[in-house]
Amino acid sequence: MRTSIGVGLIGMGVVGSGVARLIIEGSSTLRNQVGLPLNLNKVAVRDSRKQRSFPIGKNILGEEPEKLIKDDSVQIIVELMGGEHPALEFILGAVKNGKHVVTANKEVISKHGAEIFSLARENNVRVLFEASVGGGVPIISPLMRDLVANDVKSIKAIINGTTNYILTRMANEQVNYESVLSEAQTLGYAESDPTNDVEGIDAAYKLSILSTLAFRSSIKNTDIFTEGITNLTDKDFQYAEELGYSIKLLAIATRMESRVLGRVHPAMIPSGQMLAKVDDVLNAVEIETDLVDKVLFHGPGAGSLPTSSAVVADIVNIARTIAGGTDLLDPVRLTETVEVVSIDTLSTKYYFRLEAVDQPGVLARIATVFGDCGISISSFIQKGLGDKSTDAELVIMTHKANESSVTEAVSRLRKLDVVKMIGNVIRVVE
Amino acid sequence: MRTSIGVGLIGMGVVGSGVARLIIEGSSTLRNQVGLPLNLNKVAVRDSRKQRSFPIGKNILGEEPEKLIKDDSVQIIVELMGGEHPALEFILGAVKNGKHVVTANKEVISKHGAEIFSLARENNVRVLFEASVGGGVPIISPLMRDLVANDVKSIKAIINGTTNYILTRMANEQVNYESVLSEAQTLGYAESDPTNDVEGIDAAYKLSILSTLAFRSSIKNTDIFTEGITNLTDKDFQYAEELGYSIKLLAIATRMESRVLGRVHPAMIPSGQMLAKVDDVLNAVEIETDLVDKVLFHGPGAGSLPTSSAVVADIVNIARTIAGGTDLLDPVRLTETVEVVSIDTLSTKYYFRLEAVDQPGVLARIATVFGDCGISISSFIQKGLGDKSTDAELVIMTHKANESSVTEAVSRLRKLDVVKMIGNVIRVVE
Repeated sequence: MRTSIGVGLIGMGVVGSGVARLIIEGSSTLRNQVGLPLNLNKVAVRDSRKQRSFPIGKNILGEEPEKLIKDDSVQIIVELMGGEHPALEFILGAVKNGKHVVTANKEVISKHGAEIFSLARENNVRVLFEASVGGGVPIISPLMRDLVANDVKSIKAIINGTTNYILTRMANEQVNYESVLSEAQTLGYAESDPTNDVEGIDAAYKLSILSTLAFRSSIKNTDIFTEGITNLTDKDFQYAEELGYSIKLLAIATRMESRVLGRVHPAMIPSGQMLAKVDDVLNAVEIETDLVDKVLFHGPGAGSLPTSSAVVADIVNIARTIAGGTDLLDPVRLTETVEVVSIDTLSTKYYFRLEAVDQPGVLARIATVFGDCGISISSFIQKGLGDKSTDAELVIMTHKANESSVTEAVSRLRKLDVVKMIGNVIRVVE
Repeated sequence: MRTSIGVGLIGMGVVGSGVARLIIEGSSTLRNQVGLPLNLNKVAVRDSRKQRSFPIGKNILGEEPEKLIKDDSVQIIVELMGGEHPALEFILGAVKNGKHVVTANKEVISKHGAEIFSLARENNVRVLFEASVGGGVPIISPLMRDLVANDVKSIKAIINGTTNYILTRMANEQVNYESVLSEAQTLGYAESDPTNDVEGIDAAYKLSILSTLAFRSSIKNTDIFTEGITNLTDKDFQYAEELGYSIKLLAIATRMESRVLGRVHPAMIPSGQMLAKVDDVLNAVEIETDLVDKVLFHGPGAGSLPTSSAVVADIVNIARTIAGGTDLLDPVRLTETVEVVSIDTLSTKYYFRLEAVDQPGVLARIATVFGDCGISISSFIQKGLGDKSTDAELVIMTHKANESSVTEAVSRLRKLDVVKMIGNVIRVVE
């Protein structure tokens, strides 16, 4: 009979150190919750001689994850190195060796989830990944367990803290994107290469994971339409406020019968909505289903302690099943097949900001383009651009229109000589 | 080897019918999620001849829960009859017979949880009760599983839909309590005897359950200070709005080292806070911990479908462990001992609304009472009560003060001849 459960940790960055600390310092609480002691038996890092904020005994520290994933003293492998390769290979290797796996790796789960889940079932082990979405906010487990009886209709989420911080500051202080980004980098809220965050790639990884679980069908990051925040200007925030909207980078997946549309893009949402009030680095996920209507989960989406909380919860949940002597199968069961459809199928309201020559007849020519594309205008603001300019700024809000019609309208507007610039086109989400 | 899992249902009211429908109509989804078919094998109701919205085959319908809890065709008993007795006896009986139990019964879990959990461990079965708090909002499972590595500092919740509906209408329409209550009764949001809801008893049941899990120590409904909403008037809502607050019936539990204070009472909360925006029959639970700071769960706290969603999730979770061949122990482990302290230990800000004679020197006498009790005043509003009155209305906001000092001040104010009435005293929660 087993008298303890061994954990092996790959990666000792910010989250890895937090997890190691929780396992070691919280050992009595965790032992109570599991029923058996949980021991950190092996740790693999890139450079074992590096000084660390949280020191790990030399006897368990090594540099060979390849060995760690085969180690007999370890039943649960915790992968916290991040990135696609070789993390994927270590996860697959661990599963093949009959080890349970806990990971925070959104890229690997987004791109290779279906393969991993299926291999885990064959090998009768569990792969859990609560920390891959929403940091410390429980969302994966509620989706898989608590909402198991529900048919999910849609997911609407703010799941990238970096961009939410930038957008919150742009909204509150009417400052421009570049200066907020550089401050966010100084504060450690944005990486030196911010591409993954600001282009919506990170949010698309996370949305694909949530969608896969919600719709029980493999949906990859490449299935998600992705548009970042880099085109937003302080003007868009001024108009949004004037019109009663907030601008957020939303990750949305909607199911219509067997078709799913997944999209990440800046969106205008009515400022009275709960999601509009999710500020700074916080995350929120709203799930709409047939049974519970809408439930919302809100909290810190990143950081060492919140993310460690999610990782350790997964470790404890696996440890409990080991302690219970079970061979419980991986609960990820992708039993359905949905068709992923293109953003062209979207029908929603749109915000347009244009600069055009300020002379008679111009509005008529612009309105004609909208009319010809079958887009109905719901409101319209025109402002001068200052004394010296002969141009005007136009903000047009449309009724519901098709994305493909909007693409066509943008292309026609670009060809009008009286249109100087298309400042931005932002989808409205109500 | 087991080829199916049998469910026995006690009670076919609003929630019971919803659960029966989900098990029967959703059987293929549930079978996929469990790995084995889930069959509704027995149902016990008070009157089996009654016409029902959802018909149940005569062969499985009976009137003897005493038999059902021993039935060999049933592994999971779902108790949805409500009330303390005989529901408690059926739950205990089922557990003694080696049956797993799912219940939505907040009263039984609040009053007898510790006994039930301990008996469940002895008998190696699980008792789950997600639907007892927050209806369709996952909150019990996230607390027990996802936040397992956390030390909870506080719980702050809106967990009674009836009172939240009444308070929302009073705030939005400045109407009085009695007329909103009677409308709520007509709409079915309040029962004909609303005592359990409007006196905070229902919220105290739920808070005691959340506190027990959060602090891992048995905390009963009688350990919770409980004050209802019946003293609130439209004037309180007018002043709250003027001062930038919302009034909500909050359920709060706070841990200070090994001491816990649990309380349910109307509270003024700054209107910018997320909890202030939880309106109508919706529920929200905010949990503050050492690791994740604050996470918030928000959604429908009652209703047939949301509550059925929670019940079926519990059934599936137990069914998965049965299908996995495990003898997983009940995860409720009350491993700590906390001391429940009285509301007298509270220190917070207070709102006072008084009517007093409108003449020189009165304010000085009132202020002297506050001063003598060691309560510092932070702001003060005085309004006439109309042409014919010689009295004035005073609203006093205090700095942080002790509950016991406030009790003393109230008693002294009552004795002042110039004070005509103490309209209300409301605790402020920031």
